[in-house]
Amino acid sequence: MEDLNLHFTGDFHAITSANNLLAAMLDNHIQQGNALQIDTRQVLWKRCLDMNDRALRNIVVGLGAKADGVVREDHFVITVASEIMAILCLADDMKDLKARLGRIIVAYNFAGEPVTAGDLHAVGAMAALLKDAIKPNLIQTLEHTGAVVHGGPFANIAHGCNSVRATKTALKLADIVVTEAGFGADLGAEKFLDIKCRKAGLAPDAVVLVATIRALKYNGGVPKAALSEPNLEALKKGIVNLEKHMENLQKFGVPVVVTLNAFLTDTPEEYQFVREFCESRGCEFALSEVWAKGGEGGEALAGKVLKTLEEKESHYHPLYPDEMSLKDKIETIAREIYGADGVTYAPAAGKALARIEEMGFQNMPVCMAKTQYSLSDDQTKLGRPTGFTVNVRDAYVSAGAEFVVVLTGAIMTMPGLPKSPAAERIDVTDDGVIIGLF
Amino acid sequence: MEDLNLHFTGDFHAITSANNLLAAMLDNHIQQGNALQIDTRQVLWKRCLDMNDRALRNIVVGLGAKADGVVREDHFVITVASEIMAILCLADDMKDLKARLGRIIVAYNFAGEPVTAGDLHAVGAMAALLKDAIKPNLIQTLEHTGAVVHGGPFANIAHGCNSVRATKTALKLADIVVTEAGFGADLGAEKFLDIKCRKAGLAPDAVVLVATIRALKYNGGVPKAALSEPNLEALKKGIVNLEKHMENLQKFGVPVVVTLNAFLTDTPEEYQFVREFCESRGCEFALSEVWAKGGEGGEALAGKVLKTLEEKESHYHPLYPDEMSLKDKIETIAREIYGADGVTYAPAAGKALARIEEMGFQNMPVCMAKTQYSLSDDQTKLGRPTGFTVNVRDAYVSAGAEFVVVLTGAIMTMPGLPKSPAAERIDVTDDGVIIGLF
Amino acid sequence: MEDLNLHFTGDFHAITSANNLLAAMLDNHIQQGNALQIDTRQVLWKRCLDMNDRALRNIVVGLGAKADGVVREDHFVITVASEIMAILCLADDMKDLKARLGRIIVAYNFAGEPVTAGDLHAVGAMAALLKDAIKPNLIQTLEHTGAVVHGGPFANIAHGCNSVRATKTALKLADIVVTEAGFGADLGAEKFLDIKCRKAGLAPDAVVLVATIRALKYNGGVPKAALSEPNLEALKKGIVNLEKHMENLQKFGVPVVVTLNAFLTDTPEEYQFVREFCESRGCEFALSEVWAKGGEGGEALAGKVLKTLEEKESHYHPLYPDEMSLKDKIETIAREIYGADGVTYAPAAGKALARIEEMGFQNMPVCMAKTQYSLSDDQTKLGRPTGFTVNVRDAYVSAGAEFVVVLTGAIMTMPGLPKSPAAERIDVTDDGVIIGLF
Amino acid sequence: MEDLNLHFTGDFHAITSANNLLAAMLDNHIQQGNALQIDTRQVLWKRCLDMNDRALRNIVVGLGAKADGVVREDHFVITVASEIMAILCLADDMKDLKARLGRIIVAYNFAGEPVTAGDLHAVGAMAALLKDAIKPNLIQTLEHTGAVVHGGPFANIAHGCNSVRATKTALKLADIVVTEAGFGADLGAEKFLDIKCRKAGLAPDAVVLVATIRALKYNGGVPKAALSEPNLEALKKGIVNLEKHMENLQKFGVPVVVTLNAFLTDTPEEYQFVREFCESRGCEFALSEVWAKGGEGGEALAGKVLKTLEEKESHYHPLYPDEMSLKDKIETIAREIYGADGVTYAPAAGKALARIEEMGFQNMPVCMAKTQYSLSDDQTKLGRPTGFTVNVRDAYVSAGAEFVVVLTGAIMTMPGLPKSPAAERIDVTDDGVIIGLF
Repeated sequence: MEDLNLHFTGDFHAITSANNLLAAMLDNHIQQGNALQIDTRQVLWKRCLDMNDRALRNIVVGLGAKADGVVREDHFVITVASEIMAILCLADDMKDLKARLGRIIVAYNFAGEPVTAGDLHAVGAMAALLKDAIKPNLIQTLEHTGAVVHGGPFANIAHGCNSVRATKTALKLADIVVTEAGFGADLGAEKFLDIKCRKAGLAPDAVVLVATIRALKYNGGVPKAALSEPNLEALKKGIVNLEKHMENLQKFGVPVVVTLNAFLTDTPEEYQFVREFCESRGCEFALSEVWAKGGEGGEALAGKVLKTLEEKESHYHPLYPDEMSLKDKIETIAREIYGADGVTYAPAAGKALARIEEMGFQNMPVCMAKTQYSLSDDQTKLGRPTGFTVNVRDAYVSAGAEFVVVLTGAIMTMPGLPKSPAAERIDVTDDGVIIGLF
Repeated sequence: MEDLNLHFTGDFHAITSANNLLAAMLDNHIQQGNALQIDTRQVLWKRCLDMNDRALRNIVVGLGAKADGVVREDHFVITVASEIMAILCLADDMKDLKARLGRIIVAYNFAGEPVTAGDLHAVGAMAALLKDAIKPNLIQTLEHTGAVVHGGPFANIAHGCNSVRATKTALKLADIVVTEAGFGADLGAEKFLDIKCRKAGLAPDAVVLVATIRALKYNGGVPKAALSEPNLEALKKGIVNLEKHMENLQKFGVPVVVTLNAFLTDTPEEYQFVREFCESRGCEFALSEVWAKGGEGGEALAGKVLKTLEEKESHYHPLYPDEMSLKDKIETIAREIYGADGVTYAPAAGKALARIEEMGFQNMPVCMAKTQYSLSDDQTKLGRPTGFTVNVRDAYVSAGAEFVVVLTGAIMTMPGLPKSPAAERIDVTDDGVIIGLF
Repeated sequence: MEDLNLHFTGDFHAITSANNLLAAMLDNHIQQGNALQIDTRQVLWKRCLDMNDRALRNIVVGLGAKADGVVREDHFVITVASEIMAILCLADDMKDLKARLGRIIVAYNFAGEPVTAGDLHAVGAMAALLKDAIKPNLIQTLEHTGAVVHGGPFANIAHGCNSVRATKTALKLADIVVTEAGFGADLGAEKFLDIKCRKAGLAPDAVVLVATIRALKYNGGVPKAALSEPNLEALKKGIVNLEKHMENLQKFGVPVVVTLNAFLTDTPEEYQFVREFCESRGCEFALSEVWAKGGEGGEALAGKVLKTLEEKESHYHPLYPDEMSLKDKIETIAREIYGADGVTYAPAAGKALARIEEMGFQNMPVCMAKTQYSLSDDQTKLGRPTGFTVNVRDAYVSAGAEFVVVLTGAIMTMPGLPKSPAAERIDVTDDGVIIGLF
Repeated sequence: MEDLNLHFTGDFHAITSANNLLAAMLDNHIQQGNALQIDTRQVLWKRCLDMNDRALRNIVVGLGAKADGVVREDHFVITVASEIMAILCLADDMKDLKARLGRIIVAYNFAGEPVTAGDLHAVGAMAALLKDAIKPNLIQTLEHTGAVVHGGPFANIAHGCNSVRATKTALKLADIVVTEAGFGADLGAEKFLDIKCRKAGLAPDAVVLVATIRALKYNGGVPKAALSEPNLEALKKGIVNLEKHMENLQKFGVPVVVTLNAFLTDTPEEYQFVREFCESRGCEFALSEVWAKGGEGGEALAGKVLKTLEEKESHYHPLYPDEMSLKDKIETIAREIYGADGVTYAPAAGKALARIEEMGFQNMPVCMAKTQYSLSDDQTKLGRPTGFTVNVRDAYVSAGAEFVVVLTGAIMTMPGLPKSPAAERIDVTDDGVIIGLF
């Protein structure tokens, strides 16, 4: 477990190295005469570290003598926010990986045209650094069943799912493959279905929608401190949130199984209410007690999933076609999935979307960066909000990952440490045993 | 070979992570109220990357809003220049590693007192990240003989040898262990003998001093372009450089075997001259043809080493005692090893050395940062220079590594990429084979 | 004329010096131990220059060695945007000037409390630098009539009128004093009446509202390129803008005279329409031909003003009382003057206003920073917009000037030079005559 | 007196404005497409303020959005260190001023060629700002005698004398003109005679060399705390410093009068010793008691000066000819004036001097930046040091001022405020009287 949480197989380190090699080659190109006429005011590529380090969010690099580089503003993001992470998770094979790396837009030149990693001749060396990281990692769970762990792109500025190669490897190793797409079904599932499945040619047979009694009560207006008390009324009020997610998933043509992650403070009445609510809407339901009981606690849910696979047909299709305009795609997601009345665009967003279409990226799917606390883009709107518009602040293209990131609020791509960092409580005994990690 | 040159076993990544965790905790401490009263004008700890990236030499961090940290100047060094690399290479075991990590001086507070990694409660988490990196790596050569590869501290601001644990592990695995201490015998060997052996309780039985005909001719005044031409006169003139190195090593009480790395342009007369020169000064000599012939090419040299081990006694002792003052240690090295008349100190250096002694670090060995191109601190002085003084520019203590770094010139701790970086020529074939790395 | 446009009497230089002395003392205080515990992430005071220099908008200062200061982000504004300019224009005398200078909030300390110029003991020296600048400057026009020229605070983040001392001096020198309050009557006149008159105890007897046929047609929807063509229909449509300004000024209880700055492209029909429009709403009207004819061209207007002074009574009162809450003041201006339905506040603005009231500044007037291109805060809304809300982005207190600045959009406080700066066309002949200034 | 010490006639403000206009035009040129291909790593022009503000010594400008300029390192110097100050003091008239302004080198382009203020089309506008500042200011002393006060260039990186125009104006107004050239006769007088007189065609008839008993005792080895005690022995030892200055001035062919600024702690024996020392070396001597007695206290000195003017002939000539190489000029000053054995050059200095000669500036005089505390470049060497070499660290050309600045140590061009700034003690009474300025 410690290994998984520390360096694991080094994939993140490899991505970090590839990301920062590209940055070093970019700044070196500028330093060595800037043949590509890169505009230092318009560099998009950021350095990265697998570290929560707020001091690196906004930096100035290249200070010192003439030999110490050209001064410019720069930023570090955490490694999972690197476009290379998204690329690694979407690439089919080494050839595709290299093609995608080459398309990364690192900056604009003085004429406003994109400059790519390919233009910088950085692709081969980056690929060399990623040669092993592109291979899925097979590990075992505490109960000795196999699991493939591979990749972890950010769920807001990227698509948030594990790698295509991991999923496809697993599909060759097992009859049934379960994969996770977290961060709210309006975000995680939407991106899994609209980006990963669309791009990788995957067609899921069923979706398991995971909820908790606590979250539903929270969506029914209960303050966090009171979530441990039974409150059927609040549950009845908040279940509209679950209802909307169920409807959303059905829009993709895939059968839905709903499960609740059981908490000690839940009551049988609450479970019963949710079960009936789901079944009356054509969805199977089962309680998940995996946290308390391990694999055994998941048997009921597994049964319902198997039943669904046998009995219900999946007619998966993405929500919108490739050839839609970017604004139409955004509007489709906002109306259909979030329940918005429409979308407004800040001037910068309108300009950015137009520029992206001009550059020929209209056919890419959009990757929405939105709060996970509400179906809307306002985290205070709980339940199943209506009567709101989604405000798009900005947009940019991840040309290597092949999606257009649409920002609806301030997105933090480099976390900071809290007042009392967990690192202060981690230690290693003299004989090499890590303590304090969990 | 590619693996060794790319991520290898991840040790460098682990050191990078530990180094940058400490930096993040330092800046976070300042951000969260700065209870330790760290003076942001006197932060010593630098971030690191295993990347040649000149734009990161001098940076400003913490820009942006109040939540984005406190603005200050910072620097990145390459990973091998991190004090953690030196510590990892000098630590006996996990307990010692942690003790050393805890003593790292990261900054001074407003009262001028040192603030350590221990004060920041960063030691346990750093140790957790280094848990596996501290273990030596056993690999095999192309001829399938075992080799232990572990650690690579900078040879100027650190001691430049592989890890103590690697050497000790090897000593348990084999009858005879050969280890490298490069960067000129006045630097590499001096540090190996005065720092690593002293600290680790190692007593070498013999030293192999490696030279080339080309380098000796260069020291005899031949310009680089003409080094391929036979020139016995220049060799006779330049061999005083080798003579000084031989004398230097004998000052440590260890028998010396001299070898020449054979080049195609060398002549038998040149070999013969060097052989006689060495033997007349009590040193065995053998030609090394490993580059051309592999292991077989080293048999003659191995024979001479075995002969020396059998026939000559080693009375290893360091050059100076622990309790000498820092300035006396510097002067001893300058006079005895470099052949200087004495040492001058810039005002900053004098102040720094006094402060280091006040802090109680007088008994540490000194780690000289000097050009490797001359026995003096002036890289234009070839052969065996005399009549010069060594100028000390500055000094600081690596309290975790346990040596005092003495700077005699500008030291580059973050290289830059050249006009045409090697990375531009590296590639991976579609089936995963790296090309262009060598 | 050149003198007025270059250094004039040095008032701006004196303000620049006083402003930058305060900045130097602030940074010096931080450098010398920071006894006031100033949080460098929360410094509000900015340096200034009387120069359009965009490169100084956002800077980092204090780089270099320990003796070179503490690193932090800083900004330059143009001199007219300095709070000292606003203070100089509102101060009654030297005593009041010093009291106001002392109240300037330069930063917050780590406990979140304000730190003032008084806390830094900077008041006396600033006042010494301003000793002569506080005195109004008496000059003459091209027709040799006297004019008092003194002060020029920004019309968005400050109140935009000349100094109180200039107005009061003029009132002692002449029977009738005319003063300017530009930047749109919704901004300039509102601030003149709600800030300067309220604070200085001035009660104007009449207001001259200045319009142009071109601007009214523009508000009627005519594009800029077509403003030279007669277009009575557009004028009729756009005159609702003038109507709103007339109604606004009447809300302050002061009689209004309307004038048009005559342009060569205006037509008699257009003048006639405006005249009747004004007179039917109880306002005198006269054409102003000062641009073409000098003083003589203003006689008709002067007659109407004299007539108004004789015939109509002024019952001047500010729009809102001192004791209203800041949000109520903002809402009053937004509804009454701009015609908005209401006001929304960004989270930062809500927090800032609450903090300002907690610090005890509730009773100050508000100084709105809004676009001058529309009565609303959206510069594309022409004519007399309705059905909009004003969005407040942020707020801060100018405690020395004694008003609360309310920001409704991005405010530029340091202009940049254009592609072809006017400075490139200015020259001096060998005998010292300036050419190219106009 | 206050006016002289605060804004005076605004000359410094005008120079500040002209200096910063050039900087703004430079950065604007880079921002607007950089047609001149200015290398932002090689910008030489610095902004300036007439303020002691260490935080502005090293800054980064141009941060923010694309519209906020190009990021680069920059520096502020104090106004007297601006090349424009030196130019103003050396210019003959407006035509010459403009020609010199146009030759200012503001940066190098990517090809390594100089870019001038003329290339930026900034000359006319700068000249307009300096139109009045170029005129000398006539004021009166406390005893109502006339004095011309004009200009004050730094005495290290510039020539340290008042303006040529002021001197020439005074020569038309009076029979005898006295001008000051402070900062040590090895610096101030050397530059007055080698730069200002050479360039302006001035030929002084006599030189008054000013010393103090205290300074001579200090040069004789007395610590500062003991300078108030009579010490004839130390005076006899330290007078070699005065002797060297006398010899130096005689090398320019000008008769020398020596004076002592009288202090209360001086003794008649000390005066007598100095008088005899001077007279025995062919120099007139008189005591100056101006500090205590005003003009009357200078009568004796004035008498000796008049006597010298009548009795001795001046054969003024500069120390070295224009056509000497820069290194020979430096060596001449070092040997002849400082008493050095020779000069060594840091690599940067050698390169810079070669580049300056290549650019065609060999014929300019050199302007030495050296400590004023010693005749040598080591401020600890008192008296009349011998057996030393002068170390040249760097050099650059002030092409507008027309001299080559030669740096022998770290030169501070932006002072900082002390722990307790004088500004904290300055105040203005309510009726406008400044107190605490002296």
